[in-house]
Amino acid sequence: MDAHTDWVLEDLCLDPQAREPLHAQLATALRDRIRDRRLQPGEDLPTEVQLQSQLGISRSVARQAMSTLVAEGLVSRSRGRGSVVSPRGQHHRLAHRAAGLSSQIAETGVEVGTQVLSLDRMRRPAHAEQLAEAETVYLERLRSIDGLPAAYIRTWLPASLGEGLTSKELTDSSLHRILETRHAITLTGGSRQVRAVAADAELARLLGTRQGAPLLLLEGVTTASDGTVVEVFSTWHRGDLIAFDLDVEDSAPGAASAPERLPALQEAQQTAQRLAEQLHRLTR
Amino acid sequence: MDAHTDWVLEDLCLDPQAREPLHAQLATALRDRIRDRRLQPGEDLPTEVQLQSQLGISRSVARQAMSTLVAEGLVSRSRGRGSVVSPRGQHHRLAHRAAGLSSQIAETGVEVGTQVLSLDRMRRPAHAEQLAEAETVYLERLRSIDGLPAAYIRTWLPASLGEGLTSKELTDSSLHRILETRHAITLTGGSRQVRAVAADAELARLLGTRQGAPLLLLEGVTTASDGTVVEVFSTWHRGDLIAFDLDVEDSAPGAASAPERLPALQEAQQTAQRLAEQLHRLTR
Repeated sequence: MDAHTDWVLEDLCLDPQAREPLHAQLATALRDRIRDRRLQPGEDLPTEVQLQSQLGISRSVARQAMSTLVAEGLVSRSRGRGSVVSPRGQHHRLAHRAAGLSSQIAETGVEVGTQVLSLDRMRRPAHAEQLAEAETVYLERLRSIDGLPAAYIRTWLPASLGEGLTSKELTDSSLHRILETRHAITLTGGSRQVRAVAADAELARLLGTRQGAPLLLLEGVTTASDGTVVEVFSTWHRGDLIAFDLDVEDSAPGAASAPERLPALQEAQQTAQRLAEQLHRLTR
Repeated sequence: MDAHTDWVLEDLCLDPQAREPLHAQLATALRDRIRDRRLQPGEDLPTEVQLQSQLGISRSVARQAMSTLVAEGLVSRSRGRGSVVSPRGQHHRLAHRAAGLSSQIAETGVEVGTQVLSLDRMRRPAHAEQLAEAETVYLERLRSIDGLPAAYIRTWLPASLGEGLTSKELTDSSLHRILETRHAITLTGGSRQVRAVAADAELARLLGTRQGAPLLLLEGVTTASDGTVVEVFSTWHRGDLIAFDLDVEDSAPGAASAPERLPALQEAQQTAQRLAEQLHRLTR
């Protein structure tokens, strides 16, 4: 028993007295660990012999559990290496960029669809008080990726910006791009919060998942380059389909670097250097 | 019926034939919407009269459902304003900073505790291949906030960095600070992924929540200023206790500004200006 197998099987208990057969109990325990990523894609699973000796089960029970997971696509068998956790087909979103989900995912080549569920005027709700206008345009959309519903979006816009938007033009397109073009603004900043929540019945229905399924909720505001709040939104993403990627910034204040500025700074430095040499020659 | 109430009650269906009494069905439906933030903190709830007319229930059913939610602390009654969704007591983490949870949350004044569950040597698992060494130190910790378990952390360190760490020194302290002090390094960067997953039985036990509860999973690597990968980690946060905050960066390349550099640049500009004036006087 090595430390790795030990760690994989940590706290895994099977109950021979339970109604559920042992192979199904084992499959469930391993499936849960794969789903919540305690077992990671690419990770080695214990061999049938290791499962047998560690859990005190027969080899056929171990084999049947593994076959179930292989049939479900969660585990792959590779010659010589044994069983490993299969890679997950998740789409990644850069949650700390102003760009919307549609343009980000579309860059990866998959097909992104947008369906407008509702488009109404509404007085500004309490949580959208960052919008400057008391009248808002409220938009509900469903984003699908390769035909699967992946995100449900609620957006509130100041009425003056949202006025004239139609369901037709918003279908399968980017709200941000439409706003930028129509109002000659650039969407640059804002703040976001990320939470894990359980789907209620209605969110489960919209997203084609089960009630209680974990959803990745992104909420926030988007601002234009002049600081105006252009939208307040909440987007519920299916946890099994979407992950957010973050680049980490240095947390030390003042250490933020602007690599884009470096060439210009180096050029200025060389000019100064040349000037210093010219002055030095002058004063010699 | 205004658009706001309409939106709050959208798709809310009660079943008079069901075993569960109507007031309990209504309380459950509203509770789910508050928990998954379709109803936001500060949001107005429909009045008893609105619930009565919109859902075709008696006023006492509406009143009983609201009283349940008030008793649970999810809803507050305020004079003159009716019922509103109560603020949630969540702790916020800046997930795109290198700094760990403990130092970030501690800055807000709440008490952060760290319990070491295990500390072992282990060969590098498949998902930690970004670590340069094949031998790792594997660390399991439980973070609590004001006494409640809030996050479960698995960390793999290169053996050379993790060697000599003790459970004692890691208890109630920051791994990052210990590594920075002991090895004279600065932890500055890395990449992170955020996912929503459901708690399996073991994670539910560790975090004191129910099996299937939504967890916010933060995974990634942390690098030192020289680019070395110093740790690979996975942290499962209780979705009801922790939210991540993100500042949005402009996604347009080259537009990143470094406000910290501005004073120095202005100073340099003034020096150049003075120099130009001095040269101008010299050449007159």
